[in-house]
Amino acid sequence: MRNKIYVALVHYPVYNRNDEIVATSVTNFDIHDISRACRTYDIANYYIITPVKSQIELTNRIIGYWQIGDGIGFNKDRNEAFENTLVIESIEKALYDIKEKTGQDARIVTTSARIFDNSISYEKMKEKIKTDDYPILLLFGTGFGLTNEVMDMSYHILEPIRANTKYNHLSVRSAVSIILDRLLGEE
Amino acid sequence: MRNKIYVALVHYPVYNRNDEIVATSVTNFDIHDISRACRTYDIANYYIITPVKSQIELTNRIIGYWQIGDGIGFNKDRNEAFENTLVIESIEKALYDIKEKTGQDARIVTTSARIFDNSISYEKMKEKIKTDDYPILLLFGTGFGLTNEVMDMSYHILEPIRANTKYNHLSVRSAVSIILDRLLGEE
Repeated sequence: MRNKIYVALVHYPVYNRNDEIVATSVTNFDIHDISRACRTYDIANYYIITPVKSQIELTNRIIGYWQIGDGIGFNKDRNEAFENTLVIESIEKALYDIKEKTGQDARIVTTSARIFDNSISYEKMKEKIKTDDYPILLLFGTGFGLTNEVMDMSYHILEPIRANTKYNHLSVRSAVSIILDRLLGEE
Repeated sequence: MRNKIYVALVHYPVYNRNDEIVATSVTNFDIHDISRACRTYDIANYYIITPVKSQIELTNRIIGYWQIGDGIGFNKDRNEAFENTLVIESIEKALYDIKEKTGQDARIVTTSARIFDNSISYEKMKEKIKTDDYPILLLFGTGFGLTNEVMDMSYHILEPIRANTKYNHLSVRSAVSIILDRLLGEE
């Protein structure tokens, strides 16, 4: 089901530094860099998840600039990058969208710095992606990470990207890029 | 020589869309995301290369904010991310800096969408990093890429990140992250 891999960047619900549940702001680079990475690795859709109306409007305006606005003439590659990028209000709506498109329930896969009962190595997950048939929704958190409630929805939790390092604070843009490469990159 | 790997993001000399040699602007996200990726993969130094005085000052101000300014109290992880980040005027000065620090001449490694006589796979380069002793300077271009003259200085040229894909326009931030993971990530 390599053609049924979906990516979502979650701006709500996530924790802030005080463990409160908040909605973070969409940043321009999250839209651009992750859209380009998703297109490069043939992701079916990249969902930018935020329920905040002004953020939805702003994000659609940025995407629209490259899709139907002046951006097309300026940079065709960028227009193409956004072809599969969508703003959507919630994780539930993303799951519903995948169900509508594939007729199947997607399984949520997340990442964590900790090890859980359902943790899985990149190698095993890569194998499952080749052999299993269900759609997968790879969820990435912003701020200080996905809430416990969202983590509990995970079918699998990917192991930390770097287990043995003093410093391990990749940007979400770097994390998405590396994880897509590990799961979907060439052998 | 895993402890002698250096990364540089080149803002000059690079091509613009008309194949003219220009200096591009340093962007905030290039500083943050790549510093964090370099720290995570234990890179000895991350050089931001620009000869433009106003750009050098701006970049040092951003790095300084997190190193000695108000940023320390706000986000200690970010301060740590910048510990090995340096602004430097030219590729030659970066090579000189490495020579001073290691007593050895660094070999330049670049990437390209094309295949050259000295192209190398990620697997082979990963092996060389484990066995060989010389320092390596991984050069990444901004704008429309490193000039032919710089490419000619390459000891090895890494193969394209994605060989078989319709769309292949990763941001330089994504490319750096993926390449560091391929060369220095866990087995």
